Amino acid sequence: MNIEEFFHQSAGKWFSHRTGHNLECKQSEHGKSEIVFEILPTDHLEAIAVCQECKVDPPLAACCAKITWNGTMDADEKKQTGSTVVVSVPDPENRSSGKLLQKMAVPQKTAVVGHYSIGSDDVVTLTVKRENFTSIERLWFASPNLRMRVSVNQQGDEFNLASFTSEIRMGVAPPAKA
Amino acid sequence: MNIEEFFHQSAGKWFSHRTGHNLECKQSEHGKSEIVFEILPTDHLEAIAVCQECKVDPPLAACCAKITWNGTMDADEKKQTGSTVVVSVPDPENRSSGKLLQKMAVPQKTAVVGHYSIGSDDVVTLTVKRENFTSIERLWFASPNLRMRVSVNQQGDEFNLASFTSEIRMGVAPPAKA
Repeated sequence: MNIEEFFHQSAGKWFSHRTGHNLECKQSEHGKSEIVFEILPTDHLEAIAVCQECKVDPPLAACCAKITWNGTMDADEKKQTGSTVVVSVPDPENRSSGKLLQKMAVPQKTAVVGHYSIGSDDVVTLTVKRENFTSIERLWFASPNLRMRVSVNQQGDEFNLASFTSEIRMGVAPPAKA
Repeated sequence: MNIEEFFHQSAGKWFSHRTGHNLECKQSEHGKSEIVFEILPTDHLEAIAVCQECKVDPPLAACCAKITWNGTMDADEKKQTGSTVVVSVPDPENRSSGKLLQKMAVPQKTAVVGHYSIGSDDVVTLTVKRENFTSIERLWFASPNLRMRVSVNQQGDEFNLASFTSEIRMGVAPPAKA
């Protein structure tokens, strides 16, 4: 699987069930959400803006998507909603890895340049480092309609949160890529 | 990482925190357990017995371990305890994959022959098929003292359970392999 196939396979509407394991106090937290993963053309204004903010030449982008979520965490009645734009920029010499640019739709929030790599087992590993914080996320498809995501957050040398998200496709599968 | 390194890295005592996502009713179940992963020599009587039951020539075994657990599920006060012996038998032409033999210490329970493969990202994928049931589990180390496990169970064509286990080492790390 390459990153374009991973994006296209992810397109659609998903029911997302998330559980976080706090590694210090050993308690759990839970959330459920609807997620919409929408492919954007790489020459879309939002894609170009993220590339420019990350000092990446826009024609190098392989694919772009807008991810929107709408859900709740635990008993908290307050809805959690938001969206982010992601752009993949494969390494020219090895397209199974590259940059993953992310820009959340939050004022004053700057874009983040992460790194992706796709293993021989079709597991995508995303790494994002910011100052003292590192997040490593692994994603794969158990089937075309069931996606798994596991992330681990590290603050300094301390791992403080591991979280697991199972995502079930709510709509129809996207059309096969031409 | 090869399967021997994966076994040796797994040796020790772990606190295991498990969450299952029921994919049909979309509810969660939880468990906590202590797990002891003990390396056995491949010429140990238990290793030889598992190989013979699975019709595998015992000298082909690369490594063997006994895994013992002791924990609880949800509010259920009843302790869940048990043990299993696992034996890895690499494919001769490609040692990054092979058979994984498993025998639970339950009377009348026969041994199971699963398949393992290790990706370029050091994620171990275990597949076990029995009649109408398939389990696919992915395991990796986020750090030497933090192990991740994600499994998906499939009954016929239906995926019915996804579960996530984060495991934190309780004892000291095992000595480096000679």
